[in-house]
Amino acid sequence: MDDCCTTVDDLKRIVAAFVAERDWQPFHDPKNLSASIAIEAAELMEHFQWLRSDELGTIGDDAKAMAEIREEVADILAYVLSFAERMNIDLSSALEEKMKKNAVKYPPDKFRGRFR
Amino acid sequence: MDDCCTTVDDLKRIVAAFVAERDWQPFHDPKNLSASIAIEAAELMEHFQWLRSDELGTIGDDAKAMAEIREEVADILAYVLSFAERMNIDLSSALEEKMKKNAVKYPPDKFRGRFR
Amino acid sequence: MDDCCTTVDDLKRIVAAFVAERDWQPFHDPKNLSASIAIEAAELMEHFQWLRSDELGTIGDDAKAMAEIREEVADILAYVLSFAERMNIDLSSALEEKMKKNAVKYPPDKFRGRFR
Amino acid sequence: MDDCCTTVDDLKRIVAAFVAERDWQPFHDPKNLSASIAIEAAELMEHFQWLRSDELGTIGDDAKAMAEIREEVADILAYVLSFAERMNIDLSSALEEKMKKNAVKYPPDKFRGRFR
Repeated sequence: MDDCCTTVDDLKRIVAAFVAERDWQPFHDPKNLSASIAIEAAELMEHFQWLRSDELGTIGDDAKAMAEIREEVADILAYVLSFAERMNIDLSSALEEKMKKNAVKYPPDKFRGRFR
Repeated sequence: MDDCCTTVDDLKRIVAAFVAERDWQPFHDPKNLSASIAIEAAELMEHFQWLRSDELGTIGDDAKAMAEIREEVADILAYVLSFAERMNIDLSSALEEKMKKNAVKYPPDKFRGRFR
Repeated sequence: MDDCCTTVDDLKRIVAAFVAERDWQPFHDPKNLSASIAIEAAELMEHFQWLRSDELGTIGDDAKAMAEIREEVADILAYVLSFAERMNIDLSSALEEKMKKNAVKYPPDKFRGRFR
Repeated sequence: MDDCCTTVDDLKRIVAAFVAERDWQPFHDPKNLSASIAIEAAELMEHFQWLRSDELGTIGDDAKAMAEIREEVADILAYVLSFAERMNIDLSSALEEKMKKNAVKYPPDKFRGRFR
């Protein structure tokens, strides 16, 4: 599988099958899944916890760190997909609409190179 | 756009264009993005903060809450996509491989209906 | 030491001495410390990640879980104390003032048994 | 109240009284409180979300930001105190013991100026 040619529904199906095979749907309620996203996000943060901004450039060269980071991101995404499945959220249209809303809130002319 | 027919790269491109149009790449370093995922995850958690497990079933009927929840999930996904873009992570293969690893760790026979 | 007779400054001093003995002040900037609080909070959440509300009552009987939970709470508190030290925040007056503000926002008559 | 002369039990009592006056004990279960700590920690992180490490030094000069930061820290502490109250955790001894354990894990000679 590759991002070029994998749809969001393809990914949703992988996660949904994993959950269903273990009868884990009762655990995957929206409250637990939102906490799970936060837990995995915190594990991702740990990789950068004590690094200064100017020390981040070389992290891509650390194969062991990158392998762990890749797994943490996958964990976050898995819970996002399970959450969306559970709540009947179409992620593609949700993202598209939110980015359009953000574009109105942050017009490029005013926010170029600055976030406030 | 719809999850049926939208690839991960389609979504990555939307977010990358948004960031590039505002010259926000310097802010989107992996440390800041991991914190941003956690911040948005916390905003999603807020919707369920004081609800008991047995009160979660009706949240889908609350159109206002659902619209907000949809936006929070989109925010999380946007930062996940930006993080993956920045770190050159192919999300589809990362997810596929992590789920295979999880399948070994949690064999269905042993973990059906239980998580430990 | 016991909560009955230990002041906040007593606790601040323990953490400050620990940090100073290792020359860790450069790592303990407010950004890193706020992330560290979030990371430890996530580790605390993990203990309740998949439990339903009605399964929480017996956790106090699980000595191993309680010992771990106690350590996670201590980790959170240590970072809160270090953050306050670094930012010159008097926690006692900050808490007192915030609770007074909350008392105005949530008058008991209106919010008894409900949070909104 | 001032950190010099306020005990942890003094602070615990303020929070416990606030919760009791509103009959909020049923909401303050350990799962919800751990999520609440994480939610408030994320709000604290937001103040530093896009700042580089070398931009953090002047935040103390921003009176409005500092007032908000002080409130976020108070919110985190309030939930930590409520959690400890609920779980019968003596925070002072928990902190003291965890710091002793950390001192063994991170001997100053080996970890001076470095965290790993």
